[in-house]
Amino acid sequence: MQQLSAQDAQFLYLETGNNLTHVMGVNIFDPSTAPKGKVRFKDIIAHVESRLDCSPVFRRRLLRLPFDFDHPYWVEDEFFDIEHHMFHGRLPDPGDWRQFCIHLSRHFSRPMDMNRPLWDMYVIEGLGRIKGLPKGAYAIATRVHHAAIDGASAMHFFSALTDKNAKGTPAIDLAPARSAPATAPSALTVLNRALASNLQSPVKMASTLLRFSPAIWSAVRHSMGPGAERSSKVPQTRFNRPVSPHKVFDAAIFSLADLKQIKAKVEGATINDVVLAISAGALRKYLQHHGELPEAPLVAIAPINARTSHGEAETPGNRLSAMSVALPTYAENALERLRLIRDTTSHTKAAKSGISARLMTDLSKHVPAATLAGVARLVAGGRFTSRFCNLFISNVPGPQKPLYMNGARMVHTFALAPLADGMGLFIATPSYNGEMSFNIISDREMLPDIEFLRQCLEESCAELLEAE
Amino acid sequence: MQQLSAQDAQFLYLETGNNLTHVMGVNIFDPSTAPKGKVRFKDIIAHVESRLDCSPVFRRRLLRLPFDFDHPYWVEDEFFDIEHHMFHGRLPDPGDWRQFCIHLSRHFSRPMDMNRPLWDMYVIEGLGRIKGLPKGAYAIATRVHHAAIDGASAMHFFSALTDKNAKGTPAIDLAPARSAPATAPSALTVLNRALASNLQSPVKMASTLLRFSPAIWSAVRHSMGPGAERSSKVPQTRFNRPVSPHKVFDAAIFSLADLKQIKAKVEGATINDVVLAISAGALRKYLQHHGELPEAPLVAIAPINARTSHGEAETPGNRLSAMSVALPTYAENALERLRLIRDTTSHTKAAKSGISARLMTDLSKHVPAATLAGVARLVAGGRFTSRFCNLFISNVPGPQKPLYMNGARMVHTFALAPLADGMGLFIATPSYNGEMSFNIISDREMLPDIEFLRQCLEESCAELLEAE
Repeated sequence: MQQLSAQDAQFLYLETGNNLTHVMGVNIFDPSTAPKGKVRFKDIIAHVESRLDCSPVFRRRLLRLPFDFDHPYWVEDEFFDIEHHMFHGRLPDPGDWRQFCIHLSRHFSRPMDMNRPLWDMYVIEGLGRIKGLPKGAYAIATRVHHAAIDGASAMHFFSALTDKNAKGTPAIDLAPARSAPATAPSALTVLNRALASNLQSPVKMASTLLRFSPAIWSAVRHSMGPGAERSSKVPQTRFNRPVSPHKVFDAAIFSLADLKQIKAKVEGATINDVVLAISAGALRKYLQHHGELPEAPLVAIAPINARTSHGEAETPGNRLSAMSVALPTYAENALERLRLIRDTTSHTKAAKSGISARLMTDLSKHVPAATLAGVARLVAGGRFTSRFCNLFISNVPGPQKPLYMNGARMVHTFALAPLADGMGLFIATPSYNGEMSFNIISDREMLPDIEFLRQCLEESCAELLEAE
Repeated sequence: MQQLSAQDAQFLYLETGNNLTHVMGVNIFDPSTAPKGKVRFKDIIAHVESRLDCSPVFRRRLLRLPFDFDHPYWVEDEFFDIEHHMFHGRLPDPGDWRQFCIHLSRHFSRPMDMNRPLWDMYVIEGLGRIKGLPKGAYAIATRVHHAAIDGASAMHFFSALTDKNAKGTPAIDLAPARSAPATAPSALTVLNRALASNLQSPVKMASTLLRFSPAIWSAVRHSMGPGAERSSKVPQTRFNRPVSPHKVFDAAIFSLADLKQIKAKVEGATINDVVLAISAGALRKYLQHHGELPEAPLVAIAPINARTSHGEAETPGNRLSAMSVALPTYAENALERLRLIRDTTSHTKAAKSGISARLMTDLSKHVPAATLAGVARLVAGGRFTSRFCNLFISNVPGPQKPLYMNGARMVHTFALAPLADGMGLFIATPSYNGEMSFNIISDREMLPDIEFLRQCLEESCAELLEAE
């Protein structure tokens, strides 16, 4: 019986009816390398089944306490059935890229089954008509709830499913996950523990009721320290309003070689800086086109991995921190924007914290579970986020060699991440085998012309490539 | 702003991670009568959109209170989008009846999106390979949460979607639903109301905590009166254990003419009695085959519609009551079983109540919302149900003329209904256009040979037809 950490539980408390907190990885496969050039749905089920022991995420479900009295526990799902987690479908007509983006957006916008282990896979066939994809191409859209996994351990989860060649040699060492068998604890045990945990914390049990009270505000403000004043400088944009349940998705793919070429143009710049610079350039173009470019720089929160070593990635769960970066959207010159970003991030990393990082760690240390739940919901409610930043940009490095599943070669990888009220734009940039996809996740009403923002990303990258 | 009745809310409180309380109607269509013999997914969306005003169910969502402090409210979904509620898919290979049953079982076993209006529709194409179905046949599986609708108002909901001919003449009068616009109330209003409602009730506010206490038991026992003793006579069967989340489905279709012919064999028998007799015969065969036939009669709960008039059916919501009927599974002779059932039901209807009906009404009158939620969960937890009955049998009469949608003729109708721990078998028998389908809903482990029980139903019906 393992209890969720405050940070993992946070993603449950953050979840509202409109903004779900699962992530979705989308991998495209080319079956031409598979035996007989074909992969059936049941082959995929059998393959996943053979890897179930590699991650505890597959078989454990949440045990949530009455009133969220204390953080939930992970328990083995006594009714585990792999087929409950696997869906099978075909892209409807006309089967083009736009249709695919719509199909993924819809799937992503729907809630997961929170009563079972927090993952599911949707095999989407019939992608052969999408420009640039091989005949017979299919996608596997894998959803995992953020409470179960963070960016880095998601990488481990996905890697455990893949092979390094068409013959089926696992991509990584498949040591079974070390986790004690977790049977469901009795209600009494759990309530006693929760009671103890609430009593030991500085705020008393009664604080559970404070969740719905504005009084919690002052405590939160205090925990944020003097940095809170900075918030007034974050400009308001179309992305910083309440977010609807209807998400939209589109993506552009860039070669890592191009990104490295851009990086080399500014001394001391990192790939992460290039990602931020491409995003800054695209946002400038997009907002300028709509006559909405603010004078002040847009502020991005970039989640950073706070794990101490690489080995830790094998233990699922969240070790996330985040930094807040001013994007020089006001600057006209592309290389100048990259230089300004390099200056900012090297400074921020030295300080080793941003507003958001401090908020996260302070709260999870000193506030008991039930109160934290309330604060997380306030944050998710958008009263905080829009005052601290305009968008999320996440950059999770992925494997740089070709991967396979069922003998089919993985040709591209995409990722969708959750939004929150007041923060209606997420740019996720996973990399794979020499390329990086820039995935735009937003709200249908905020970004009705999402393909135009994708085009702005492409132009922004091209501009940096040409700049001297 | 409309509050749910105790009975409607009950279906929310009853819902556990393993037993969801939505219903699913499955209609099969023959597109050969449609314009150009073809119906596209977007035609179906457009048709449903044209009927949205006929039922408030389409656009309203639940507003649930913290701690289920009081029964939830219905509010307009400010983010309503019809496409969020419509799914599109194709039956995977081999596309036969068994595959179709599995596909429906899986869909039914997954939770609905409880944050949006409580309905969704899944259009399943590619049924042409199922024996007896026309070329191009497709199904529409419509799920509605039981909190939003009961059997009779479900009929209204479905009827409002259908036409009486291929030209698109609505099947029923499409007067817009009379419902005041319901915007989301402020949290304060709702909490104040809840507080008042809890204080006015005989049990004080503190009773919310009793939900998790065994003390509630004595109150419940008391409310059930002397009838509670009868419970010890209900035999235990394979269906009266905790139910897994993995439901199974199969169905047989009988002609109403045949059922009427059977009815005529026993004076005073009703079609409902015939339904019970066919079920009793099938269960006898099935349990005998497995060497599990108990000596005592199996006990069925048959929900009955407690509405006072037919007109009320237009107001969605639950006016359900139920009677408990002993099924003479011990009797060898088929007609003798029908006679015994006639004797029992005429007596039960006169008494106008069964154990379950009394339990439902007493509780919903005298116990405040939060406590009722706890009791409902105890009931759903199976500690009650298995002591009162072995299975559910529901018989909701449907339209006896052919219906159409998008010009396509509806050829069959099926229905899936929820299970509860301790009650792992439901036989639902909707009728349509001269036929009645017997739908078996159970748990995969309890009923691994569901097609054998379907066969028993067919044999039981044939036996009654031949009996003299």
